[in-house]
Amino acid sequence: MTEASATQWIDARTIATSFHVRFAETDLMGIVHHANYPIWFEEARSAFMRAMGTSYALFEAEGISLAVSALDLRFLSPARYDRLVTIQCRLEKVQSRKLRFSYTVLDAETETTLAIGMTEHICIDAAGHAIRIPPVWYERFARIQ
Amino acid sequence: MTEASATQWIDARTIATSFHVRFAETDLMGIVHHANYPIWFEEARSAFMRAMGTSYALFEAEGISLAVSALDLRFLSPARYDRLVTIQCRLEKVQSRKLRFSYTVLDAETETTLAIGMTEHICIDAAGHAIRIPPVWYERFARIQ
Amino acid sequence: MTEASATQWIDARTIATSFHVRFAETDLMGIVHHANYPIWFEEARSAFMRAMGTSYALFEAEGISLAVSALDLRFLSPARYDRLVTIQCRLEKVQSRKLRFSYTVLDAETETTLAIGMTEHICIDAAGHAIRIPPVWYERFARIQ
Amino acid sequence: MTEASATQWIDARTIATSFHVRFAETDLMGIVHHANYPIWFEEARSAFMRAMGTSYALFEAEGISLAVSALDLRFLSPARYDRLVTIQCRLEKVQSRKLRFSYTVLDAETETTLAIGMTEHICIDAAGHAIRIPPVWYERFARIQ
Repeated sequence: MTEASATQWIDARTIATSFHVRFAETDLMGIVHHANYPIWFEEARSAFMRAMGTSYALFEAEGISLAVSALDLRFLSPARYDRLVTIQCRLEKVQSRKLRFSYTVLDAETETTLAIGMTEHICIDAAGHAIRIPPVWYERFARIQ
Repeated sequence: MTEASATQWIDARTIATSFHVRFAETDLMGIVHHANYPIWFEEARSAFMRAMGTSYALFEAEGISLAVSALDLRFLSPARYDRLVTIQCRLEKVQSRKLRFSYTVLDAETETTLAIGMTEHICIDAAGHAIRIPPVWYERFARIQ
Repeated sequence: MTEASATQWIDARTIATSFHVRFAETDLMGIVHHANYPIWFEEARSAFMRAMGTSYALFEAEGISLAVSALDLRFLSPARYDRLVTIQCRLEKVQSRKLRFSYTVLDAETETTLAIGMTEHICIDAAGHAIRIPPVWYERFARIQ
Repeated sequence: MTEASATQWIDARTIATSFHVRFAETDLMGIVHHANYPIWFEEARSAFMRAMGTSYALFEAEGISLAVSALDLRFLSPARYDRLVTIQCRLEKVQSRKLRFSYTVLDAETETTLAIGMTEHICIDAAGHAIRIPPVWYERFARIQ
């Protein structure tokens, strides 16, 4: 069995998850197109919630969402097809209506930093209105921070 | 004003719509990644319904969908970044529960055929169950075929 | 003929380009997934260069690239399927080795601002090394700013 | 450690690889958008070549590609966000200039078949001309079939 992806806690509020760069994620410069990094960040958040013992699918199933309100990205070194990359995803801040995560993308083998970034999220209901994070979920996040 | 995209009827049941190839649609082979063609076909269907004087958004707003049940694609010649491509989209078949569209993708300037394809669609309700196409919509499609 | 996309200068260094939101750009929240905005920005830059009377494809054909080094995005209001959106793309800064663009995404009909953002770009050669923007291209950009 | 993805041989010419459905892969119907299946198939082929003890990146590094010439897909049941899916990828046919793979996409837990498909590939050189698969690679593939 060839291990391709795995998630683990690297400190109390940071997970690391790894996966292979997909061919479709490259562009004609021969490197990963920058619009894939927000998708990788999102997949790292999904892995974060699975590592918490829950799933963002359960959050969504309650008719609420953590909409992305801000995204910052700095690209340091190109990522390439079929390389194993590691995303470190850290829960930076938990507020009553807002979460902030930060990210470091590394080449898993060389440990070169490929990109860093952060996302902010607001809790919204099914109608798209900003609401407080429901207490059960708030406590789960606050415990980690 | 530089025209970038436009849709027109080229016969009673075929539209042609044109747009520039996006950079993000390329891959490390320097050409358009094949997974973009289903997205182009879908955008051609959206243009088809706008040309019918309606919108697929209105179909979705009734809680129903035309789910893709089959997709066939043949790739003949590569598409390249920033070229204007034309998709010809034809409504091939209208049945009580099913539609079939066919597609030809052309380089707008050279008229080289880049790919051909077809999609089949079944009508489903919000719960995902196959249903008859609602009469008002069925008639709109049947009139074209 | 149904107009779907067009580009025009709205001031000496800003273009506006419009297109319909694609179905594939939505996610299960029913709105445009945030990772599509960097792709829209990039398509706006492609339209910017076409409006300059050239093409980013010609830049790439010289074996050089304007790699994205930074991306910031703020999401203000959700974009929805089949709506016509307008991207205003402004060349903010031209340096010997760097460009900066800013962006405003609007709903074309309601003129609601959906998102704002900026990207920074460094000029790199085929080997990925940072270089000066070639003089011919530098002058084209500097003339606009 | 939470296992997220792994690849194994399930018979002499078929691998199975598993990964979680990404949020960005969903659309406003609440299910995985159909254009992601060709990307999953491609990632399964990448896993196939890693399981062979090599990498498609090494193939590309020789200036040659296995361009997709045909793609057929049948969608049987929707895939959903955060579910673990398994792709079975089988090398169906090896010819001097052509490969064919077939695919079955399963929900890893329920074992429901979500989709089936096939792709055909022709070997092309850097100029895009169809060529014979180089002997070393041909033998690797032929050994499996």
